[in-house]
Amino acid sequence: MRTIFWDDDTGTVRMIDQRRLPGALEVVSCRTHAEVAEAIRNMTIRGAPAIGAAAAFGLALAARESQAADLPGLLADLESAARTLGETRPTAVNLAWALARVLAAASRFTGPAGDLRGFVLAEAQRLADEDVEINRRMAAHGATLIDKGDTIIHHCNTGALAVVDWGTALGVIRTAHEQGKHPHVLVDETRPRLQGARLTAWELSQYGIPYEIISDSMAGFFLSTGQVQKVFFGADRIAANGDVANKIGSYMLALAAQDNGVPVYSVAPTSTVDLALEHGGLIPIEERAQEEVLGIQFDGQPVVPQGARARNPAFDITPARLVTAIVTENGIVRPPFEVNLPKFVRS
Amino acid sequence: MRTIFWDDDTGTVRMIDQRRLPGALEVVSCRTHAEVAEAIRNMTIRGAPAIGAAAAFGLALAARESQAADLPGLLADLESAARTLGETRPTAVNLAWALARVLAAASRFTGPAGDLRGFVLAEAQRLADEDVEINRRMAAHGATLIDKGDTIIHHCNTGALAVVDWGTALGVIRTAHEQGKHPHVLVDETRPRLQGARLTAWELSQYGIPYEIISDSMAGFFLSTGQVQKVFFGADRIAANGDVANKIGSYMLALAAQDNGVPVYSVAPTSTVDLALEHGGLIPIEERAQEEVLGIQFDGQPVVPQGARARNPAFDITPARLVTAIVTENGIVRPPFEVNLPKFVRS
Repeated sequence: MRTIFWDDDTGTVRMIDQRRLPGALEVVSCRTHAEVAEAIRNMTIRGAPAIGAAAAFGLALAARESQAADLPGLLADLESAARTLGETRPTAVNLAWALARVLAAASRFTGPAGDLRGFVLAEAQRLADEDVEINRRMAAHGATLIDKGDTIIHHCNTGALAVVDWGTALGVIRTAHEQGKHPHVLVDETRPRLQGARLTAWELSQYGIPYEIISDSMAGFFLSTGQVQKVFFGADRIAANGDVANKIGSYMLALAAQDNGVPVYSVAPTSTVDLALEHGGLIPIEERAQEEVLGIQFDGQPVVPQGARARNPAFDITPARLVTAIVTENGIVRPPFEVNLPKFVRS
Repeated sequence: MRTIFWDDDTGTVRMIDQRRLPGALEVVSCRTHAEVAEAIRNMTIRGAPAIGAAAAFGLALAARESQAADLPGLLADLESAARTLGETRPTAVNLAWALARVLAAASRFTGPAGDLRGFVLAEAQRLADEDVEINRRMAAHGATLIDKGDTIIHHCNTGALAVVDWGTALGVIRTAHEQGKHPHVLVDETRPRLQGARLTAWELSQYGIPYEIISDSMAGFFLSTGQVQKVFFGADRIAANGDVANKIGSYMLALAAQDNGVPVYSVAPTSTVDLALEHGGLIPIEERAQEEVLGIQFDGQPVVPQGARARNPAFDITPARLVTAIVTENGIVRPPFEVNLPKFVRS
């Protein structure tokens, strides 16, 4: 099953509810673009490529919701929906990229107004199908970086659940596993939302790939004691100089890897690359609700004292100097990234 | 109230149950040295200086438990109890230091055998009283390192709960607060046992010191965005070259601080310094039960999939090159530590 897909019978977008995993595998339906926006915001669906696909399908719903009778009216409604969808999460650029792609296609449409609805849906469907193919190509490129028996630290979730299907960084590990390279994964639990402990551990158990969960703060111990050969994570936005915005904690993980001579690979489709931004300091970092940090429990009991407050930046910037290579669907990009990234990104 | 104290009325060692905080402030009693050993093992009491005091009081209980009628018999029972107490946790050297100190005093005792029991208790009491005085001296030295309005990242718990009273790194922050320097603390939650979110946040709220809890992985974000002026943590063992064994995560925090030019201070009594060990690689690192990592919950639901496994190293080594200074009761030790540490440690 894909993480997100169009259901023709009901005319809805369906997606796995990632907040309920691993306890329950539930699929929820969105009937309107506003419901898709809320699903992105509350992280029913997350992962940069997956929310890109969700936004595209959101526009398909918006086209069907529109009462407009002519093309300009329909396009205005699509643009309004794109603003709603685009405001849900600021850091991952795939969201803006997917909206821009579908809107641009719609604006070039010249047929009867009524047919634009099907055209927008077809474009969203094409984007989703391409995402699966792109993931397979990234995985094939990235798997060449994995040696037999490697122990890999992986941060957040970058598997099938983070994309339409297969995965970015975890897709690489999956492909290496299928190639008989026997990778072993140390899964960063990835506080505060615990996408590693919750989703990556669940995916790895489905694929039969051996893993152990670690607290994010433990990565340095395993790196400094020579137990790790590679670090892999995804990306939410990559600046023109190769700075990588990714799930909070990626920067400290990359620092610990570099301090011990372990390579760091970011795996992301070229739709994640934002050549318009010179460096990572220009990438907006989302700060989410403090309850995501404060809500932790043990033995059913809250942990923090009453009245406690928290900070919750959801992403950080791994400077390009800490990134060994960026794996894209078009190949493996090495430094200097400002020179090499444009060669891999189709305009 | 002290974290641990002797109760003359009942002839027991009493200690705050740190597993129940912040929900409940409960004091438990240990009647035997075996109960003290279990309290150290299960982290009813934790913090390197506090478990040193607990071990000393454990020997006081062992002396009272002993049926031996002569000094050699009593000493043999004390040595047996010291082995039991010493095996509870391997990393913090204060435990071994306290046991050795009380045993050495007992071995020099020349009075009537029956009086050794009171003598051992008096020695344990003296060690506990000295701990409080040592903490005050460390705090006074360390507070000179804090500037008005500093935002400080603090890892684990090093407050009154980690010692007999006052605190090591948190004691420094407390004293700076009393001096009107208005420190603001970003509290590393400190997975997996969450001593920061659980204990440090509770202590800071008691002292009226403003703080916010962060996930350990967020420290790099705040450091790299210029929001932090100092990093403070304690130590469980310091090697002769200044390598610091401390709660898991300290190493990655120190790396992120160094990468942004922010000083890193380890605050610890000289009983934490193990001049017999040339470097941190020789310090034994405790690996605790995987349930401490896997038992995390949200909304009363488990997070990890069934059958998940975890690793759980409880400490890591921060190399001396990342440590700006070590604050002891005898003053602030600066690099080169292999030259300067011996000058501060009384033999």
